[in-house]
Amino acid sequence: MSSWSQIRRECAEANRRLAELGLVDLTFGNVSVAHPTEPVFAIKPSGVEYDQLMPDDMVVVGFDCNVFEGRLRPSSDTPTHAHLLRNFPHARCVVHTHSRHATSWAQAELGIPCLGTTHADFFRGEVPVTRPLTPEEITSNYELETGKVIVERFTNLNPAEVPAVLVHRHGPFAWGPTSAAALETAYALEIIAEMAWRTYTLRKNPAPLAVDLREKHFRRKHGNSRYYGQTG
Amino acid sequence: MSSWSQIRRECAEANRRLAELGLVDLTFGNVSVAHPTEPVFAIKPSGVEYDQLMPDDMVVVGFDCNVFEGRLRPSSDTPTHAHLLRNFPHARCVVHTHSRHATSWAQAELGIPCLGTTHADFFRGEVPVTRPLTPEEITSNYELETGKVIVERFTNLNPAEVPAVLVHRHGPFAWGPTSAAALETAYALEIIAEMAWRTYTLRKNPAPLAVDLREKHFRRKHGNSRYYGQTG
Amino acid sequence: MSSWSQIRRECAEANRRLAELGLVDLTFGNVSVAHPTEPVFAIKPSGVEYDQLMPDDMVVVGFDCNVFEGRLRPSSDTPTHAHLLRNFPHARCVVHTHSRHATSWAQAELGIPCLGTTHADFFRGEVPVTRPLTPEEITSNYELETGKVIVERFTNLNPAEVPAVLVHRHGPFAWGPTSAAALETAYALEIIAEMAWRTYTLRKNPAPLAVDLREKHFRRKHGNSRYYGQTG
Amino acid sequence: MSSWSQIRRECAEANRRLAELGLVDLTFGNVSVAHPTEPVFAIKPSGVEYDQLMPDDMVVVGFDCNVFEGRLRPSSDTPTHAHLLRNFPHARCVVHTHSRHATSWAQAELGIPCLGTTHADFFRGEVPVTRPLTPEEITSNYELETGKVIVERFTNLNPAEVPAVLVHRHGPFAWGPTSAAALETAYALEIIAEMAWRTYTLRKNPAPLAVDLREKHFRRKHGNSRYYGQTG
Repeated sequence: MSSWSQIRRECAEANRRLAELGLVDLTFGNVSVAHPTEPVFAIKPSGVEYDQLMPDDMVVVGFDCNVFEGRLRPSSDTPTHAHLLRNFPHARCVVHTHSRHATSWAQAELGIPCLGTTHADFFRGEVPVTRPLTPEEITSNYELETGKVIVERFTNLNPAEVPAVLVHRHGPFAWGPTSAAALETAYALEIIAEMAWRTYTLRKNPAPLAVDLREKHFRRKHGNSRYYGQTG
Repeated sequence: MSSWSQIRRECAEANRRLAELGLVDLTFGNVSVAHPTEPVFAIKPSGVEYDQLMPDDMVVVGFDCNVFEGRLRPSSDTPTHAHLLRNFPHARCVVHTHSRHATSWAQAELGIPCLGTTHADFFRGEVPVTRPLTPEEITSNYELETGKVIVERFTNLNPAEVPAVLVHRHGPFAWGPTSAAALETAYALEIIAEMAWRTYTLRKNPAPLAVDLREKHFRRKHGNSRYYGQTG
Repeated sequence: MSSWSQIRRECAEANRRLAELGLVDLTFGNVSVAHPTEPVFAIKPSGVEYDQLMPDDMVVVGFDCNVFEGRLRPSSDTPTHAHLLRNFPHARCVVHTHSRHATSWAQAELGIPCLGTTHADFFRGEVPVTRPLTPEEITSNYELETGKVIVERFTNLNPAEVPAVLVHRHGPFAWGPTSAAALETAYALEIIAEMAWRTYTLRKNPAPLAVDLREKHFRRKHGNSRYYGQTG
Repeated sequence: MSSWSQIRRECAEANRRLAELGLVDLTFGNVSVAHPTEPVFAIKPSGVEYDQLMPDDMVVVGFDCNVFEGRLRPSSDTPTHAHLLRNFPHARCVVHTHSRHATSWAQAELGIPCLGTTHADFFRGEVPVTRPLTPEEITSNYELETGKVIVERFTNLNPAEVPAVLVHRHGPFAWGPTSAAALETAYALEIIAEMAWRTYTLRKNPAPLAVDLREKHFRRKHGNSRYYGQTG
């Protein structure tokens, strides 16, 4: 249980940080943090304000969403988080927001095209949008099915190289190997969504970034040949 | 009269909160709070700055707008508030702003379509815009007639399920059973107005959200089967 | 000279307030305040930062722009201010900014149409844009000619009822009987410019506000029959 | 080496100021400051946060990018900075950002047209966009080639009169004789990019500012006949 206190602490801090970064309004957003070795994760409680979230407020649940520890009800989005943490092996943290620019693309039923090097620094190509859920998926296990359409969308995509998605008509999910990485991705996603939108209003149907330039920037920051930053 | 001090206090705090939420510029906005049992409500005085509003500055008026208590002149919008409080039984608080995104839709003579789940979390369908007032309505009892066109617009709508409206060419009104609920609705309205605008600039004439998904989200947060948050 | 210290003080405070209101970037903006009885006015020095402006930094000049008092060079826009203060009798304060939304309209060579009641609360109709200056006007006395095209634009307009203008391809000037009024107008101008822009992006060529509604709102706040606020 | 401590100090302060001005998100941006007489310059280390940058964190490198002093790895953009400092004689400081408005123009593959006097106060005409890099340029010495396409773009332009550029699909670089001047230019660039974008959304294909007005404003602030500010 002392090991659980660590993920509760990391999860509380990441949820507070979400609000500080300006990525959430009201209570639209949540972060989960998985245990490094045990099959459990900590997640924000449902419908609670961010600024006073303490480690003890976090809920520890298993991958089938049974509550192991915590006096509050977990986020209603918990089954989505569980499904992503289970299926995207490198992801130890999932961030969900309704950040305003990314959500606008989701509402327009459009993925965010890769239009510049800022995008390519974070995502190897378009940030995709999921298909709509079917009426059956909506009325059965809605939040679990949301996780399933995300995983389905990554059938031919590597979630470690495109670490975010737009859920159709809903909003973004981002993930990463640490809460710091997942939060940075969620923040970068909002910025590239803003710049892509403005690019669209300046020029109809801009072509995506040339693949060689996209690869150059992605590899500057990721993989064995990266040379950005102080390590690696 | 001690019971009136309670609504004056709640009203002063709600008006100050309006400014803190960034929903009002200059003096464009006001909140009213009705007494739970007596036929009176407290309302902001006309043309006064928000940051120093004290309970004693609030004006207590009856539903025919006669002043019962208070040394300042009540908001010029008082007859609109009175008409809504009288006609929308569940509403105990009315919030009026010229918040910039919602007002832009009102100026475009358009209701805000339900384009995503954030919208559906708060409003069961489009946030409607009223018809224009006739020249007679403008020159007779303008503020009362404003209340009347709002109520008219809800002839076939439930104001408890769509707790906001855009007054044609003017701006939004929101309401709720508590001042906290009405303020949250006014704030959410501004956010969904912003995201709907940006969606419109990305995609011409987007279809509204599928009804089953809209209902799913609305019912997650409202009614007997809701499962969002810590209660209910 | 003690009477001049009063306008220097009011002028310094108004210039600082300009920055606090978010209406100026870098050093793009200036306020002048005329003496109530003598033919002089105080104005911001040229190219100086706002946050530390003190009364002694203000320059007192006559209407022909000769410096009466002050150790700094007056704003290069001084002849424009002088011409407006001389020709618009009710104006005792002139505010010039490059505020971002209003300037965007000036760059588009468009006046700001009256699209809603927020606009009508401050301006009786469109905020006009001047004609371009001729090459001769630009190369002779540019700043004085700028004042002249503004006054020319108001040939059939009342500058007390439309207390602002957009200088073609340049930016806004606003004015009023007090520095508080002129600053409020400059601030309201920026807000209505923002909302009109967004309205334009939602709807092509919206019709202006119906004249009877425009008049209703303008008269609620101005003139003998006004009933907004605590006085009059 | 005591002379190097001066450029390290100026460079650290300029990089921190970049963040304070709101021109950078995450770690997307860097400033270099050249020594006044020796062929070296100080530059931000790669991938480090801004708020705690100290003079000792800066890296001192030669124009061929060999590190002379510093325990951290220099910015990956160092070869671009070196090439600009070497080829633009008046530039002693180079500022690179991904500021959101300027980058949106770069992503749209468009230079920023001169649409108003605010632009003309800083730039003598359009802020140009470079040509795309060839696949060979991308895969060989990418950052050096980026510097080369910038210099190539200024073949018939004076970098002292147009002290900024948009790198195609990437973002802006600005420069100046001092770090204060280069930072002011980078900030002004973002503002004029914002206003030009909004002008474009109000009016399709606006004509550029008349040349005589552009020249008037540019010369008010620059060159021997300038009369803006307190000196010169």
